[in-house]
Formats: sequence, C-alpha cells, structure tokens
Amino acid sequence: MAAEIVNPRSDSDTDHVGPAGADEPFDPAFALHRGGKMAVQATVPVRDKDDLSLAYTPGVAKVCSAIAEQPELVHDYTWKSNVVAVVTDGTAVLGLGDIGAEASLPVMEGKAILFKQFGGVDAVPIALATTDADEIVETVVRLAPSFGGVNLEDISAPRCFEIERKLQERLDIPVFHDDQHGTAVVTLAALRNAAKLTGRTLGDLRAVISGAGAAGVAIAKFLLEAGLGDVAVADRKGIVSRDRDDLTPVKRELAELTNKAGLSGSLEAALAGADVFIGVSGGTVPEPAVASMAPDSFVFAMANPNPEVHPDVAHKYAAVVATGRSDYPNQINNVLAFPGIFAGALQVRASRITEGMKIAAADALAGVVGDELSADYVIPSPFDERVAPAVTAAVAAAARAEGVARR
Amino acid sequence: MAAEIVNPRSDSDTDHVGPAGADEPFDPAFALHRGGKMAVQATVPVRDKDDLSLAYTPGVAKVCSAIAEQPELVHDYTWKSNVVAVVTDGTAVLGLGDIGAEASLPVMEGKAILFKQFGGVDAVPIALATTDADEIVETVVRLAPSFGGVNLEDISAPRCFEIERKLQERLDIPVFHDDQHGTAVVTLAALRNAAKLTGRTLGDLRAVISGAGAAGVAIAKFLLEAGLGDVAVADRKGIVSRDRDDLTPVKRELAELTNKAGLSGSLEAALAGADVFIGVSGGTVPEPAVASMAPDSFVFAMANPNPEVHPDVAHKYAAVVATGRSDYPNQINNVLAFPGIFAGALQVRASRITEGMKIAAADALAGVVGDELSADYVIPSPFDERVAPAVTAAVAAAARAEGVARR
Repeated sequence: MAAEIVNPRSDSDTDHVGPAGADEPFDPAFALHRGGKMAVQATVPVRDKDDLSLAYTPGVAKVCSAIAEQPELVHDYTWKSNVVAVVTDGTAVLGLGDIGAEASLPVMEGKAILFKQFGGVDAVPIALATTDADEIVETVVRLAPSFGGVNLEDISAPRCFEIERKLQERLDIPVFHDDQHGTAVVTLAALRNAAKLTGRTLGDLRAVISGAGAAGVAIAKFLLEAGLGDVAVADRKGIVSRDRDDLTPVKRELAELTNKAGLSGSLEAALAGADVFIGVSGGTVPEPAVASMAPDSFVFAMANPNPEVHPDVAHKYAAVVATGRSDYPNQINNVLAFPGIFAGALQVRASRITEGMKIAAADALAGVVGDELSADYVIPSPFDERVAPAVTAAVAAAARAEGVARR
Repeated sequence: MAAEIVNPRSDSDTDHVGPAGADEPFDPAFALHRGGKMAVQATVPVRDKDDLSLAYTPGVAKVCSAIAEQPELVHDYTWKSNVVAVVTDGTAVLGLGDIGAEASLPVMEGKAILFKQFGGVDAVPIALATTDADEIVETVVRLAPSFGGVNLEDISAPRCFEIERKLQERLDIPVFHDDQHGTAVVTLAALRNAAKLTGRTLGDLRAVISGAGAAGVAIAKFLLEAGLGDVAVADRKGIVSRDRDDLTPVKRELAELTNKAGLSGSLEAALAGADVFIGVSGGTVPEPAVASMAPDSFVFAMANPNPEVHPDVAHKYAAVVATGRSDYPNQINNVLAFPGIFAGALQVRASRITEGMKIAAADALAGVVGDELSADYVIPSPFDERVAPAVTAAVAAAARAEGVARR
C-alpha cells in the first residue's frame, strides 16, 4: 500500500526555501514544497526500441482499437481504473477561503499524495480557472473520459451541492465532495463508537451541529440517514428551523429534514440537554452551553486550528471528546475515509458512491477500533494500517450489494 | 533523466491478457497495457504526523497564502512548473482516425511516459468528451492553472490549427500541437544534416510535401521559416496552388505562403526535378516519380507503417532516405523533439514556444550527429542520451534570447 518515496527534482538549491521577501530565512513547509510534492512515473519499461514498439507505436494501436470496439476495456488497459481527478475552484480552501485556483494547488497536491499513500489510488490535481457552477460541471464532464472518479475539494457552499448533484446525474463514475461526505463518514464512525462506549444506540442521541456549510449540511443528512434520533443545525443566525424566513434553498431543505424537536433560537439554547455537539464552524461555544448538555455527552469540536470548545474544557463535562487536531486523541480526519472509499469504489468500478457505501465505510472505520474502545480511542489513527484495507473492502462489498458495481 | 520503472499494479492475473473475444490467447501489447502504463508518486514523505503537518494541514496553508499573495510562486512550490497536460479529443489517433476519447487514452499515456522518460517532464493524459473547437479551447483554458504547458495531440485538421491558435492567444504557458511542430522540428533537423552531407544550403532546396493535414501544413511553414528555397504541398487533389478554387481557409493561406514556383497539377508532376520529398500522407508515390527527382535528392517517407516510398526503392535514386520506422536508418520520430522542447520551455518558464525555439531545437538535434554524419545517419536515435539535454539547453537559451523566458 505504501507508495515509494523519491524526489527526482531535489536539488542543492536549498538556500532559497521561503517565498521571496518572507521574513523567515528558513521554513520547513516551504522547503518541503519546493518543486511540488508529486510526480508521474512510468510503470512499464521504455528503455529500447522493443519497449517503445509495445508501449507506443505500433503496439498501442491494437489496444486503442480494442477499446474503440469495446469501450469498457478502457478500465483494463489504461490507468483510468485507478486515477481520480481532485477538482477544485479554489473558493473554500482550508480556513483560507477564496484564494483562487493556483493558490489552492498545494492542498490539491497534498490530497493527491494522500490518495496514493493511504489508498494506493493515483490522483491528479485539477484547479479550475472558473467559479461558475455550470462551467465547472461542463468542464468536469468533458474531463471524465480520462478519470475513474472525481473528488470535489474545497468548493464553497452552496455551489458545491449543485455541482456535485449535476455531475452525479451526468457521469457514470463516482463523484464525491470530500468536504461533505468524507467528514460525515468519519464523524459517524466516531459517533457509533462513542454511543457503544456509553451503552446507547444512535437512535438515543440528539445532536446539534454548529455550521451549515458543506460539512454541516452533509453531516446532518448522513447522521439522520444512519438513524440518529434528532439533529439540529445552527448557522450564524441560530438554529435552522421552519419558522425562519432567511433560509437559502439548501437550508430550507435542511429545515424540513432536521430538527424534529422544533428548536429555534441560538446554538447555545439548542445545546441544553443535547447529547452530541458537532462543530464544523470555526466559532466558539461558551463553557456554560457545554455544561448544559445531557450527561455522558459527546463533544466533537472539529474546527482547525482552534476547536469550537477547547478539549480541556470539553473534558470537564463530556464523556467523549474529539477534535480535528492531531495533537489530541480522537482526531476526526478525512484521510481515514476518502482513500479507502475511492479505492473500494474503483476496485469494483462502481458507477457512483451510494449512501450505503458511505455507511459501510463508517462502520468499517469504527470496527477497526474493536475491543480497544475507550473514551480516548473512538476513532483509529490516520496512520493505522488496518484502516484503508478495511474501508476499501467494506465499500467494495457495499457497492456490489447495492448493485452499482460493474465487476 | 531516466525515470524509475516500477509497476505497483502488476498482479498474477496473467491468464487474461487480450481483449475478451480476441483470437489470440496472448498478445504482449495487451499484457503490457493491463492496468495502464503510468502512476502518480509522492516526492515527499507522508509517513507520520509530522510529515502530514508539513505536506498537508497545517503547514500547507502557509504555502497557499504565499501563492495567493505572489501568484508566480505557484511555479516554485507546486508541480505546475514541471507538468504538461497531454490533451486530445480522440479525432486523429495514429493511423486509426476518429476513435473517441477513451480509445485514445493508451496513446496519451504512452506520450506521457515518453515525456517522463526522455525529458524528465511529468505529463497527464486528458482525453476530452467533446470535439467542438470552442469547447476544447474553453476547457483547456479552465484547466490551465494546474499545468505548466499544454501538448495538443491527435486532434484532426483543420480544427487543430484554430484550437492551438486560440489557446496560444489566451494562455501564458506553452501550447504546442506535437503532430504539427514536433514533426516539423525533427524533419528540419534531418534536412539540415542531409543538406550538409551533400554540400548544399537549405536555400538551395526545393521540397514537395505529400499531405496537407496537421503535419504537412506545419512542416511547410516551418521549412520556409528556416530558409528552404521552395516548398510545394500536395493534398489528394494535387498541388495546393492559388489557382485552385476548392481550398479550405488553411490551404488558401498555404497557397499564398508556398509554391513560389507556381506549380499545379499532380504530386508526381511536382516531383520532377525536386530536391526533397516529404511524405506525411500515407499514400504511395510511384517509382518513376521518385526517379524524376533531381540528383542527390532526399526522400523522407514518413507514413507508418507503410512509407510512401519503400526505402529499397528510394535508395535507388536518393542520396538520403529517412522514414518513420524504427527498423530502417534515419527514423523521423517526434520523441526526439517534444520532451526536450517542453523541458527547455518549462525550465525557463517560457510563456510560449516561438519559431526561434523550434529552430533552435532542430539545430541542436542536427548537431548531436556531428562528425559522424553519413547518408544513414542524418538524425540521432531516439535512445541517444545526448538528444534531450541538447534540445533542452538550446530551447531554454532561445527562449531567453527571444524574451519569452520568465526566469
């Protein structure tokens, strides 16, 4: 599974490791990024005339002709079956926001090498010079013949929802907006284990989500799909509820699906008696609101680098605390999900990634923890080598069970 | 320069090495193509938490912010500076014609690994699901932030001319249709050495080109640019001349630029007394027409797999014979040019590939032959390791001289 690490472009040009004009003479992040973080490699020899006559003309012509006659052979005889486009428009990059296509590339490259390292999946960064939803859709549809899947990344809400939906309608390969579904899958896995630890079922739990962007909306829908008792979502103006008249279409749909309890008003008010807090907002939750939650509560404060509730504060009241940070236990990290989800989908040539496949991924991820389950261990480490194979196998099996596998 | 060859996806599934239903139980070309011919690799470590914090969050954010502030830093800190999109619409693939995007992918992958093997340039196959010229242009413009250059490949004439021109107008990275210019560069290199061998200058030569598609048009223009005495181009209806009323706009322009001698009529008629025959048509030239050429003529019969004039026939009359085949001397092979041309352009971040850069590439290629020049050695072997460094250096220097280099 581990990709071989080489740096064909390393050079002795180490005196210039920061951006021009930067205050710091040396920064390890800039040094590491010099020349980029990825490369292409041939997987067949091209050393002599005979090699060339097989890998290129004239040998390649037979393979082209075979695909022209039987289009599905493209999966057998090209890298399409193992390569994902990591597509962004640079509008919602990390916590940096709308920084544009070029500036988003280091994140897309990072994502690509995580695909390779953790899932054995090849991935290509595609940062687009347009933020128009229809243009993004058209562009990705035109690119699709070359790829086995599309990972949408760091595209701002609400365009991300429309773009994903339209692409899923038009393409017969998996299209997956990781900021939505990857986060939702890992959250569900942690929540399942937290419920197990405290002797409850998902149906027993009422959750409050802070943040109604890509992640918040997806987590809310996915947790309800998985059987959570109730979920309420708060944006900056408070709980998303049917009585609000300032909702976007996406939030109106959310108001219909969520908040069975009919809560309205502030996030803090909704937290009183709630079992679960899920933060994907970057805001701050006052300590009294955390204290007002039900006994044995779960606080998943996932904003980076500053969790909505500091773990030390959360631990005073909650039975299980998770964050997005690697320096605290229970890190909710998308890398636990997306490499295996795509690897499993590509393995069986799934035409799409279904809700069942995502739930299977969450269950597999939760299952890796097994008997070692504890309050500080509801979710595996990103570097646990059991994770990707478990998720891959579960997703492939679910794709077959759901009838979207093509082999 | 040589890329490391590994095959992470090789498996024991060797019983199925031909397309389903194929007559042959085993074909080495299908066996070699199984799983594709290329992969992505990380060039930095992603083994533990510390690695991840530099290559991905939080470290990557600093690099993104720096690029957002100083856009040109994208060349320093991502793989953009070394990666080329190999873009096709699948309409003119090898001798196979319009076989569609998916079926063209094995050729595009082949091209990508040649870029890597011979030029150290990363390349990504992009086969588009559209053949509309404007849609292709729009799509490539939107992709451009992720790439350092665009190699157009196997797009049929006359759309290829319009697509290349519009992309060159809109993008500030090199856009190069290899079927046109790569062929023209290697042809000029061979011609320069053939002229040298026979004690003539380019200005002394009158050439006749069979074929007025992408390669024929580009070779004609380029040879005139380089100083050839005269060039006439023949399509299926005969010599392209001002008196014809059936010419497309591209061929009308060609009629203005070429054929100073004012020839008209058949290809065979034009060959009488000509110094050079250049075949990029796939047709056949009768032996008497070859016999009618001037003394010390050059026959470059480049159609594959069947040259327009068989080398054995050509040798009866010509001083220098070249083909597109690897099993005869003097193979005119684009791989001699495109890897070094892009490597040189990317090295200095050229905004475009100028005529001067292409002529410098041809001169460098011719120069590799040096004192070993002979009738059977007017052009180096594709596997001559001196070729790519020589072309790269010459192209980079020419880009600087012409003011299109950005470093």
